Amino acid sequence: MSIPPLQLVNTIIENVCPNVHQTPVLTSRILNEMTGASLFFKCENFQKMGAFKMRGAVAALSQLTENQKQKGVVTHSSGNFAQALSLAAKQLNIPAYIVMPQNAPRVKIEGVQRYGGIITKVPATQRDREAGAAKITAETGATFIHPSNDLNVILGNATAGYELINQTPHLEVLIAPVGGGGLLAGTAIAGHYFSPKAIIKGAEPATMNDAARSLQSGIIQTNPPKAYTIADGLRTTLGDINFPIIKDYVSEILVAEETEIIEAMKLIWNYLKIIVESSCALPLAVVLKNKPAFKNKHIGIIISGGNVDLDHLPF
Amino acid sequence: MSIPPLQLVNTIIENVCPNVHQTPVLTSRILNEMTGASLFFKCENFQKMGAFKMRGAVAALSQLTENQKQKGVVTHSSGNFAQALSLAAKQLNIPAYIVMPQNAPRVKIEGVQRYGGIITKVPATQRDREAGAAKITAETGATFIHPSNDLNVILGNATAGYELINQTPHLEVLIAPVGGGGLLAGTAIAGHYFSPKAIIKGAEPATMNDAARSLQSGIIQTNPPKAYTIADGLRTTLGDINFPIIKDYVSEILVAEETEIIEAMKLIWNYLKIIVESSCALPLAVVLKNKPAFKNKHIGIIISGGNVDLDHLPF
Repeated sequence: MSIPPLQLVNTIIENVCPNVHQTPVLTSRILNEMTGASLFFKCENFQKMGAFKMRGAVAALSQLTENQKQKGVVTHSSGNFAQALSLAAKQLNIPAYIVMPQNAPRVKIEGVQRYGGIITKVPATQRDREAGAAKITAETGATFIHPSNDLNVILGNATAGYELINQTPHLEVLIAPVGGGGLLAGTAIAGHYFSPKAIIKGAEPATMNDAARSLQSGIIQTNPPKAYTIADGLRTTLGDINFPIIKDYVSEILVAEETEIIEAMKLIWNYLKIIVESSCALPLAVVLKNKPAFKNKHIGIIISGGNVDLDHLPF
Repeated sequence: MSIPPLQLVNTIIENVCPNVHQTPVLTSRILNEMTGASLFFKCENFQKMGAFKMRGAVAALSQLTENQKQKGVVTHSSGNFAQALSLAAKQLNIPAYIVMPQNAPRVKIEGVQRYGGIITKVPATQRDREAGAAKITAETGATFIHPSNDLNVILGNATAGYELINQTPHLEVLIAPVGGGGLLAGTAIAGHYFSPKAIIKGAEPATMNDAARSLQSGIIQTNPPKAYTIADGLRTTLGDINFPIIKDYVSEILVAEETEIIEAMKLIWNYLKIIVESSCALPLAVVLKNKPAFKNKHIGIIISGGNVDLDHLPF
């Protein structure tokens, strides 16, 4: 069994939920009419630091020993996990070393700085990121925490689905976007334990459909080197900790084209009146693309975050 | 006494609140740090049809006789009240005739159409609007409802402040944007009856500061013919029903420059993660501009609406 025991899941819920916002679940009559389904959006854009990543960061820190806490934590992230770990660590007075690619969005670098993260900039390759983090670990003794391929992080992410299920009875489908796989694996765990009749689906960009191909083949797949998606939070690939969970508990990963992602993002902005990242648009995009399959279903959708650079909108 | 009796206020509350959303009150640690105050944002962008105007429309319809309901209602509005009256009337199966200027934003015309309003387009002058509405009244017997200068509409608007006060104890200041004056007058009524220690302030664009000048002079002032503000919801002037209330119960109307409005709008988008119209930015803009006066105060801010044309953002 790839999934962690309920007792551990409950321990993480007890550690995480009191330390993060219970974000609201929003609905839209117009989006329901457009899709023919009943959509329940779990709004993690309203989470502390603006994304569900806060949950995983808090969860990971909650499992450190006192000695580990003193030495601090390190991660490599161009995105929301960098900010999440910085803020979660700041709240516990733990040093947080953040390895960021030189080309990370300005809004995310500023976020890390605001939350007191200690930034090291490296060239924008996976190898440079990993090397940068390893160097800091060697120098400081800080504990490395992966943004998505870490069991505690995954379990922290599961608390979003857990809350959504408690806030919204009778969900038949849960859909999360999938990039690194941490949110989808966490959502699958939440569904398995707290809404076992609900089907779990992932949603990812068609141009970077590694997760869909991984689920079909049973082996982690990668994307071509020059693959691109507007959904910058989903430009990563699955890991060996989250993929077994996804393989066992996710029924399907649906994909959407870039134009469909942008269109769905605009619909969320227009009708839910909330700021969401392009990554958040994937679940709505795949529902719109596959209306017959979702007709009349009660669908829970995890809105992953709202840290958008307003000076660089895709529309 | 310019203010209506409490009994009438309570009647309208009973008619309106069960028929609209009780919108959430949001806060932001970062915006509190930036202003040095505690800000509580009453999010009417999440209201039905996306703005507080729904409250006034529901209130006005609730006071019609059966005979009046059969003949329908008419208004002239380039903005949210057009949509609000259309939707509120649709819910009661009442015909809603909407006189709109030819240059009204596309997003608002589409909104009226979606809610079943019967549109008549007229040239974009106040005289043409009024003539258009008068012609429809003469032809159909429909009851004219003014978007802001109507006591029932004002009392409907007051329910936003009423809810905010109930959701947020100990408010010391309430701030609403002021254009036509209906929201500010309603907020003043809510403050007077339900939070009498709170000071009521208005916020308006410096380039169209007719309300500030009106309050100072005691007589309704107008703006120069070519005056312009990005805050399109505030391009109107006070009326003879709402101004007496504002004159007696509003302590001050503060103004903000166009750049300050845009900056405050961006701050709300960035940190509250919500879509708000430029008009909504006025209260935050004036708090940022007058920090010493608001230091450590608990301030309730009415976020008026979220119907933004995403293809024409001011930043």
